[in-house]
Parts: sequence; structure tokens; C-alpha cells
Amino acid sequence: MGLRRFMRIGLVAMTAAAVPCAFAQPPSRSPVISPEVHDDHSVTFRFRDPSAQSVKLNLEGAKSMLMEKDDQGVWSVTTPPLEPDFYGYSFNADGVNLIDPSNWMMKPNLISTSSQVHVPGPASLPWEVNDNAHGAVHHHFYRSAVVGDQRDYFVYTPPGYNAKAKQSYPVLYLLHGFSDDASGWTAVGRANVIFDNLIAQEKCKPLVVVMPLGYGAPEIVKEGFGAPDHDGLRQRNFDKFSETLLSEVIPQVEEAYRVKKDRADRAIAGLSMGGAESLRTGLRNLDRFAWIASFSAGELAGTFDSVFPTLDAKANAQIRLLWIACGTDDSLIKGNRNFREWLKSKGVNHEDIETPGAHTWMVWRRNLSNLAPLLFR
Amino acid sequence: MGLRRFMRIGLVAMTAAAVPCAFAQPPSRSPVISPEVHDDHSVTFRFRDPSAQSVKLNLEGAKSMLMEKDDQGVWSVTTPPLEPDFYGYSFNADGVNLIDPSNWMMKPNLISTSSQVHVPGPASLPWEVNDNAHGAVHHHFYRSAVVGDQRDYFVYTPPGYNAKAKQSYPVLYLLHGFSDDASGWTAVGRANVIFDNLIAQEKCKPLVVVMPLGYGAPEIVKEGFGAPDHDGLRQRNFDKFSETLLSEVIPQVEEAYRVKKDRADRAIAGLSMGGAESLRTGLRNLDRFAWIASFSAGELAGTFDSVFPTLDAKANAQIRLLWIACGTDDSLIKGNRNFREWLKSKGVNHEDIETPGAHTWMVWRRNLSNLAPLLFR
Repeated sequence: MGLRRFMRIGLVAMTAAAVPCAFAQPPSRSPVISPEVHDDHSVTFRFRDPSAQSVKLNLEGAKSMLMEKDDQGVWSVTTPPLEPDFYGYSFNADGVNLIDPSNWMMKPNLISTSSQVHVPGPASLPWEVNDNAHGAVHHHFYRSAVVGDQRDYFVYTPPGYNAKAKQSYPVLYLLHGFSDDASGWTAVGRANVIFDNLIAQEKCKPLVVVMPLGYGAPEIVKEGFGAPDHDGLRQRNFDKFSETLLSEVIPQVEEAYRVKKDRADRAIAGLSMGGAESLRTGLRNLDRFAWIASFSAGELAGTFDSVFPTLDAKANAQIRLLWIACGTDDSLIKGNRNFREWLKSKGVNHEDIETPGAHTWMVWRRNLSNLAPLLFR
Repeated sequence: MGLRRFMRIGLVAMTAAAVPCAFAQPPSRSPVISPEVHDDHSVTFRFRDPSAQSVKLNLEGAKSMLMEKDDQGVWSVTTPPLEPDFYGYSFNADGVNLIDPSNWMMKPNLISTSSQVHVPGPASLPWEVNDNAHGAVHHHFYRSAVVGDQRDYFVYTPPGYNAKAKQSYPVLYLLHGFSDDASGWTAVGRANVIFDNLIAQEKCKPLVVVMPLGYGAPEIVKEGFGAPDHDGLRQRNFDKFSETLLSEVIPQVEEAYRVKKDRADRAIAGLSMGGAESLRTGLRNLDRFAWIASFSAGELAGTFDSVFPTLDAKANAQIRLLWIACGTDDSLIKGNRNFREWLKSKGVNHEDIETPGAHTWMVWRRNLSNLAPLLFR
């Protein structure tokens, strides 16, 4: 099957010796090239669907765009010039969302995997791969006794980290959002590339980054925040996440990696649901974390006194950084502002970070790139 | 966009506090569930496309199946009971191949990413995740001076491998086929799960497995084996692959991991293009490899005397295992038989492995599961 599609795409015409399967017919169509990134950073998206009545492009951070059909049944649209970045997208054909079948670059997600396009920019952008030294990304699997399932986490080690050497590193726990999986921060967020670049430029201290699966109650992915057991499910999702992080992931990481174990060398940050998790887990465990950050945090619905009953100005002596970022076009900006007002009313020092942008990875890559230089200073 | 698709799928109805983006309308359709694996191991595939004239299922290892449309515009087909395994598949709607938009499990490929379905089987199947200890998968990145690009490789370390411990392990170099990438053996082949299980059952010695990107001339992915520079391109693809493996990957692995460095503790195996690479790299570097295996090897077109000019019965003293496997329904079976005949004519000892099956990952998972217990004995 793979090779049938391969032939269809028409990039190659393989000879018999190289073709593992027999083909009944040659491809009858010319290949669809999609996406095509132009020199001015506009992008043409193409999708063949002769019988569709209407096809739209859903591009991350943009309103959906109507595509136009040519006489070959290929729908296309060209965007305005885009900021260099990575963008998720999908096609919507007569109401059905579809991945781009001409593009191998996926944006994984537990519910709605989509496609990704790279609009390349200057080497100075933190998420562009440069010819500097690269760290490694390690994928670990374990059975969680806390949650009762098989799960995973990723670990980034910086360039020059050598299992045989002796230096120990500070460690950042970096959390994904709903409904990403543990691969979100590397496969979409490009965290490993960002750290490679910032470390090479000496803007960021060499560190280890741990990216765990962020669900304490994984059934929340299927049942959603609006499940019948609404409040119980959300609460269990947070509580069990904190518990597996503190009692399972951190001990495993500290056993397998050369990381420092004092609170001044341990940070926690996350986006959306993971932002809420870093605030809850971090601010309620200040004996473990001195550096706490959230990007576009969700779940900031005004019950702060009950979520953080003991938090007050005394925490300032322990918190090295409390960094709360949200895009001004994000519908979560209000909850974030409310939370910061509440922190202010409690006398808890923090950084207010409002940036352009909505609830997108373009915002979160920049958040991470701006946060990293502040850590462990 | 991710959340719009999320709502469309209709698995959840999130409340305002959890919804980062505003929605104009509730979803107007019921969700499509696909794939649905039944108790008897038959699988129903579904795909909504009201305006398509014809939709087919392309399932790995099977002939394409016509799907039928219901009055909601949802096409479906139910397979006969399938052997428990992982299967790649895609839909073909009016000639256009598409990933299943209802399924997050992808089968990555540099040219034609498709979807995957898991037909679960008994815990005794080597690719089923069990509650035993799990190894880790490490993703490394480097700039290849040999090829002149940024590239990657994956490393599996067995359960109990601890960077701080002292034991050293034998190492298998395991190569993917055309047009997979370095993730093929883990994301599709489930090599890490297979080794976890075989090691837990003491069927396989604990080992380190290195899975490099298999292209010495990466332009072959775009240009194909039938490019104008046909012979030169293939040759360069093999030669530069061998060179980056021997002079870049192996030294990096031996620096970073606790692996044994003598030839008796180094194996090489691969599938399809990677099978050809393991035979060429292995048999021409017997000072480096004592264990050599190919699964459904390609490029066995009869020029064996020129590819292996010095290979003869003297090699038997060095080769601990030469294991040549191919499915009897694979169109490459003839080349494999020819090669084994040629080996016989040269007096080179080897194992002839013919199995049921075609050019599929179902064959290669079984090949790996059967090979692993033979290594390093």
C-alpha cells in the first residue's frame, strides 16, 4: 500500500529491481505539490478532490480560507506572507477535516493529528536547526502505579551531556496542553532545537528538560472536560498528574540522569492545561520548585483561594521566578489577568507577560525561547 | 484549528473555562469512529465523504477493498478477521489517497505517511506492550560531514541500562527501508517493544540497538531509484551510508553508550533497502560485524561478483550468523533466492529463511522477533 501511494505521488519512477510490489497500472495523475512555500513566505496549499463542493484551509492562528478548484479538480489557496515559523493546518472538504495527503510532516495529537508546514526563517530564529552541536531526546516508558497505566516521558539532554562524564545539570519539567501527548514539546514545540540554539549562543544555561505525559486521568482525553463527572474528572486529572510527576517521574529522572536535586535547580513550566498544572504543582510544592512558568494557562476560573489556600507573600522568599504569559488574542487572557490580579492581592511577586498572538504553538515557541534565558540564573 | 477539529470529532463538549478558542457553531455531525476493531479481530473502517463516487480501503498486505456509503455519506468496510498485528492503511477517495482523519495513530514515512490500526493479540505476541520493564529510545542528531546534512539516529537501551552502571552490552545496527525515516523501526516496527518482551522472557540477550537514517544520498527519496543518474545515485546511496555508519554513527555510539567494541558483539540487520545495506556493509566489513541479517532485501539483481568480489568460504570463519529472510509472496523473493544460490556457489554458510507474507511490516516484525534470539550467543 505504501508503495502504491508512493507511485501515485509520482516523485519517482522506480525500476523493477527496486520495486518490492507489483503494480497493475502506472499513475494516471500528475503529483500535487503541497505545501509550496514561496520566497516571500506566502504558502500555496493544494488538495485534489474533484467532487468536493467546497474546500477550506484551516491554518493555525488564521481564519479558515476558502480554496479554489482548477480544471483538474485540484483546490488551492495562497496565503499572504507568513512570519517564519511552523504552522499546523488541515483541509476541510465539504465539512470533513483532512490531513494534507501530499505532506509527510505531521502535527501529532491524541484527538486530531494535522499537518505542519515550515516557513523557514533566518538562522537566528530559535526553532531553526543550525549547524551547532545538538542535544539528544530520550523516550522513556514506565508503568504508573499512581495512574494505573503504561505511559511515557521525553528527556532532552544538552550538547556535551555524556553519560560517562561527571557534571550535573539543572532540570526543567515542561508540560504539554490538552489534547497533545508527551511528544508535543519536541514534535511540535521544537523544544530540543530551541535549547540547542540558546545553549550554543550562551543565552541559556545547559540543562536537562523532562517532558512527561500530562494526564493524571487519561480518560479525560476521550471524555473531555465536559464529562458527566466534570469536576471530579478535572480534579483527578490534576491531582494524579502531580502525584505521578512527583513520586514517579522525578525519582526516575534523578536516578538515570545527572541532574541537580535541590529546589533552586528545578523548574516547572507548561502550556494551556500544562500551564495550569505547572502553577498548581509548582506553587503547591515550593519545597521542590523554585522556578515556575505558565504559557496560556487554562483552568484559571476564579477559585484561586481554594486551589492555593496557603499561598501568600511568604512564598516570595522561595520563588525565584513566577512567569505568567498569555497572548492578548487568546480567549484565556481574561483568566490569566484575573489570576495575576489575585496574585497581586496576595502580594505574590510574578512577571506579567502579555504577547501578541492567540492559543497557538507560534506563541508557545516564543514563550519558551524567552523564558529559558531567565532560568537558573 | 486543533480545537475546532476536536469539537467536530465530538468526543467532548468542553465548558467555556476549558475552551481556549471561541466557536461559532456546535458540531452538526455525529462523530465517525474509525477504525473499530471487533472481538473477532475483524475491523470496520469508516470515512465520511458524501460527494465521493468511490472510496477504497488500502490495507497493508491486502488487496484494496471497496467501501460502501450509507445515507449519511459515511463510507465503511469491514475486513475479515485479521491476524493480531499492526497494519498500515489509507483511504482512496475518487483516486486520492487519504489518511484516516478519525485516527491519531500515524505510520510515518518520508513520502507517504498513512494511518495504523492495532489488532490486539495475546500478551505473548512480541510487539504487544506488557507489564514488564521497558527500555528507553534515545533520539540523537548530528551533522554528517560524509553526507553533508543534518541527520539523526535512534538508540534503544534495554531495561536496567543505567548510564551510571558499568555493564557493557552488545550492539545491533538495525536499518529501515525506502522511504522510511530513522523512526521506522520504533514507530512502525515496534523494535523497542519487541526487545523489551524478548529480554523479559530471557529469549534475547540484553543489547543496545542503533537505528540510523538509512540514506547515504538523501536526494534518492525525492529523485527515486529511477533518477537520471540511476546507477550513480544508488551506488552513492549505499557507499555514503556505509561511510557515515562506520565513521560517524558507530564512533558516536561507542563514545556515548556502554557497548562492547569487538566484532563478535556487533550485528547489522535491515529490511528492503536496509537489507541490501546490511549485506553490503556487513559482508564487506567482516572485521567490524560478525552477525549479519537481511529481511526482504532489495538490490539483489545479480551483480553479486562485482558487489562482493572477495567474498568466499574463508568468510565462514568470521561470520557467526548470516541470516537471509524473505516472504514467499514478496516480489523480491526471486532476488533473495538468487543471492542465496550465489552464496552457496561461493561456499558461504548462511540461513535461508522463507516465511509466509509479502513486503510488509507484519513480516519484518516477525523477522526481527525470530532473529533476535539468535544474536550474540
